[in-house]
Amino acid sequence: MCQLSNVCKRSSYQVIINDFGKPNEVLEGVYVEVPNKLSSNQILLKVLMSPINPSDINMIEGTYHIKPSLPAVAGNEGVGEILEVGGAVQDHQVGERVIYSVADRSQCQLGAGTWRQFSIVNETNIIKVPSNISLIGAATLAVNPCTAYRMLKDFVKLKTDDVIIQNGSNSAVGQYIIQLCKYWGIKTINIIRGRQEDEKEQLVGHLQNLGADIILTEEDRKKGALKDILKSLPEKPKLALNCVGGDSSAHLVNSLRQKGVIVTYGGMSKRPVMIPTGAAIFKQITAHGYWNTEWMKDYKNSPERMEMITELCDYLDKGIIKTPKAELFYIKDFKTAVSESLKEFKTSKKVLVMDETLKC
Amino acid sequence: MCQLSNVCKRSSYQVIINDFGKPNEVLEGVYVEVPNKLSSNQILLKVLMSPINPSDINMIEGTYHIKPSLPAVAGNEGVGEILEVGGAVQDHQVGERVIYSVADRSQCQLGAGTWRQFSIVNETNIIKVPSNISLIGAATLAVNPCTAYRMLKDFVKLKTDDVIIQNGSNSAVGQYIIQLCKYWGIKTINIIRGRQEDEKEQLVGHLQNLGADIILTEEDRKKGALKDILKSLPEKPKLALNCVGGDSSAHLVNSLRQKGVIVTYGGMSKRPVMIPTGAAIFKQITAHGYWNTEWMKDYKNSPERMEMITELCDYLDKGIIKTPKAELFYIKDFKTAVSESLKEFKTSKKVLVMDETLKC
Repeated sequence: MCQLSNVCKRSSYQVIINDFGKPNEVLEGVYVEVPNKLSSNQILLKVLMSPINPSDINMIEGTYHIKPSLPAVAGNEGVGEILEVGGAVQDHQVGERVIYSVADRSQCQLGAGTWRQFSIVNETNIIKVPSNISLIGAATLAVNPCTAYRMLKDFVKLKTDDVIIQNGSNSAVGQYIIQLCKYWGIKTINIIRGRQEDEKEQLVGHLQNLGADIILTEEDRKKGALKDILKSLPEKPKLALNCVGGDSSAHLVNSLRQKGVIVTYGGMSKRPVMIPTGAAIFKQITAHGYWNTEWMKDYKNSPERMEMITELCDYLDKGIIKTPKAELFYIKDFKTAVSESLKEFKTSKKVLVMDETLKC
Repeated sequence: MCQLSNVCKRSSYQVIINDFGKPNEVLEGVYVEVPNKLSSNQILLKVLMSPINPSDINMIEGTYHIKPSLPAVAGNEGVGEILEVGGAVQDHQVGERVIYSVADRSQCQLGAGTWRQFSIVNETNIIKVPSNISLIGAATLAVNPCTAYRMLKDFVKLKTDDVIIQNGSNSAVGQYIIQLCKYWGIKTINIIRGRQEDEKEQLVGHLQNLGADIILTEEDRKKGALKDILKSLPEKPKLALNCVGGDSSAHLVNSLRQKGVIVTYGGMSKRPVMIPTGAAIFKQITAHGYWNTEWMKDYKNSPERMEMITELCDYLDKGIIKTPKAELFYIKDFKTAVSESLKEFKTSKKVLVMDETLKC
């Protein structure tokens, strides 16, 4: 055990879930004292930023697959700076920038979320990241870019000029899919929800800038636009990435080539994944689900994970991938941030900043 | 080239598809002359029996994934006896009993169906079967028992006391699934369509005799009976086999354990396979389709296929698996046979017999 160098006890503001329900009715901001002793393998982090992801909201609502014991601190990923290390810690040093995510912790610590100013974590539960990447990039690295990366790597072998198709293409994951594919030479067909003409134009422009090859709306798809697009391709998509479900997923499946694969990582329509029976049998389509939390648990501290994080940090540093537009909120304004994140057509990711001076 | 020993030309009655549509409007029975010359690798078969499978009907209706060039002979599997062999044939002899199925032939020969009295086939397209197994067993071996066998072998590793769940359990494939599982020590949960009480009782008795562990109707399932059944099991099913689709498939998926697998081989409800999004993502369920025709093409003349056929013939011989109840029709009565096969609640498989003397 070692003593924190700062003898005065630190006070940490954190957002806790008191009960499952409507976020702004059940969340509460409170001050707690940070324990002033670290055990030998613990690390004290000054948390810098933590995003509001859809799964955070589901967890607060009690609709997520995993329910923490209450009260629990909200938030599931973030970036921090090491303030103190326990006596036996060898692989980390004070001043390092690290990312951490709740999937790294055991089930009983699920409540130990990231929407807080200071956090004591086990040394094996953090990953060092270079300090040249943006704080927003680091804070949002563990979930969305990793989800995009793994879905493109783990289910089919993609090579240059292969085609993938996705729906919900404007989601944070969708935008990383576009950028990774662009860099890897893979063509993307991107379906987005319909919206007002000027807004649509802006979004299409944004996705094209990221590297999207083909963009169409769900409405275009329903009118048969996808068929014409597929006819124009030398080969049909090998992989479909689905975060919508329902009819939209059935159309993704129908657009796949023989022995194609659909991977589901979300269900925005609240409808099940639908696989037309003929496609399942005669086209030999396989459907998988991808859950980042599970992958991180299975591959904790694995070479695969370190390789991915290193590669993604490099891409962020070189501007090969850009983080989706983000809007920063001081942690004490979490209610406004959460309300904004609940709006149907969001144009930016909401990120909590733990130190008001970092906000700009 | 070699001359057929019987110089008189043979006449063969066969059922041809003239057009795609309602079976008894588009099927026609005709006599054709059997060519009296075999090329060096050809074999002349006296066809003995050929079943009417649902996929035969779909092919006639034009709704099947594969459409033969018309006119085409109907039927896709059967058993025959070798009458003559070409000059270069070494692995087969006159008098042998063999099974053959259309999946063994190239796309352009799809029309060369099995509802006929004589057939000239390539030597690589037939498989010898022992003459001690029943003709009905041999005639129906290539599709349904193989489908059941492969679905139980190829998608998850099942061990003694594992549980599988299936719907449409009274289908021919479903009955083989029950029997193979019984013999291999695997427990089965079997969902059947609801029907009148006396008929249901009879069917339940029949499936229990085959070795079914748990039987419930789709109506019981909708009322929540499946939940109670699952609670009573030490472990949830590892594998679900689906020939219904729609809600029924969603319930199969929900009954699976973590990382369970659903395999679809039919879609009697005409609804797509439905995979609840939460199950796809958080339970990491994988969905596959199984198409026997494709498997047979991929594994033509493979050791895996020979091993399976040998094993299934042995099971048939020893009574470990029984063929579903069959009703025999002389080929010239094909219209009656087809009409009977189209009835909604069938209690037996309809099988065409090519030689009237074999009918009893």
